[in-house]
Amino acid sequence: MFGCLVAGRLVQAAPQQVAEDKFVFDLPDYENINHVVVFMLGTIPFPEGMGGSVYFCYPDQSGMAVWQLLGFVTNEKPSAIFKISGLKSGKGSQHPFGAMNLPQTPTVAQIGISVELLDNLAQQTPVASAAVSSVDSFTEFTQKMLDNFYNFASSFAVTQAQMTPNPSEAFIPANVVLKW
Amino acid sequence: MFGCLVAGRLVQAAPQQVAEDKFVFDLPDYENINHVVVFMLGTIPFPEGMGGSVYFCYPDQSGMAVWQLLGFVTNEKPSAIFKISGLKSGKGSQHPFGAMNLPQTPTVAQIGISVELLDNLAQQTPVASAAVSSVDSFTEFTQKMLDNFYNFASSFAVTQAQMTPNPSEAFIPANVVLKW
Repeated sequence: MFGCLVAGRLVQAAPQQVAEDKFVFDLPDYENINHVVVFMLGTIPFPEGMGGSVYFCYPDQSGMAVWQLLGFVTNEKPSAIFKISGLKSGKGSQHPFGAMNLPQTPTVAQIGISVELLDNLAQQTPVASAAVSSVDSFTEFTQKMLDNFYNFASSFAVTQAQMTPNPSEAFIPANVVLKW
Repeated sequence: MFGCLVAGRLVQAAPQQVAEDKFVFDLPDYENINHVVVFMLGTIPFPEGMGGSVYFCYPDQSGMAVWQLLGFVTNEKPSAIFKISGLKSGKGSQHPFGAMNLPQTPTVAQIGISVELLDNLAQQTPVASAAVSSVDSFTEFTQKMLDNFYNFASSFAVTQAQMTPNPSEAFIPANVVLKW
């Protein structure tokens, strides 16, 4: 029903079915993974009114499983790319895999897919940093960052009349920052 | 041998084979596509010493096919994510599909895979904006941009002793820029 692809590696199309409605892919050497693609194989659709929540699970320093909600796949949106590099600093989220005690190996993470009612999925909020769509607003993000920087730097701007005498301190004309 | 997945859509695993060593996937409604994943199915590897160059082909305003090299898949790196949104402003690159005259429909683009010697692939340069790996070095990129900015702004730095009198011009202490 599901496939999973780590960018740069071979596709996996045979998840471990850990419950009637729960599927798990192993991600070996997960610290070297940037992007993961989760998709429906197109063979069996979700039952009507249902979809899948996609979780990333990795072992914390003490070997306990930390789960983070990456997003969803549904019959209408049967594939998604997630960015998992950089997720490790985040906190775990609520998840439906609680009782399963997946074996935790220090270098192996998991992708877990839980088949649930669409109504349930609509109430769940994925971790923002996993959304690859944010990549599309890269330019926008950069512009916002520079705007922030200009606002930040400008708050320190002084005119010569306001300067305390200190001939060695270097100053940058504010319009240089703005033009850049 | 190959699969193709548009983020958000169903996977395609049956390319059109347009020559012994050339495969094409159609991408309907390509203007609404951001990311494309190209991967080997894992059934048949490339012959030794060979790999695949991956091209994006779209119709220009006059309906002519424009080809751009996105990157490569090989037995060692059997999958890749490419960003195709934003490629339309780029120029076409040399490509090996020249004589094929794929039918051009205004809203349909193609992914073309050409099986070639690895030595040939090594001499080809994909369009930079297609590399999703650049996303991975986002922090690095941002840091480099800020370093560039500091170097740029610093070149304008003056001390009070060097300032021409102009009480209304605003200045930003250089160490504010550096600390940020």
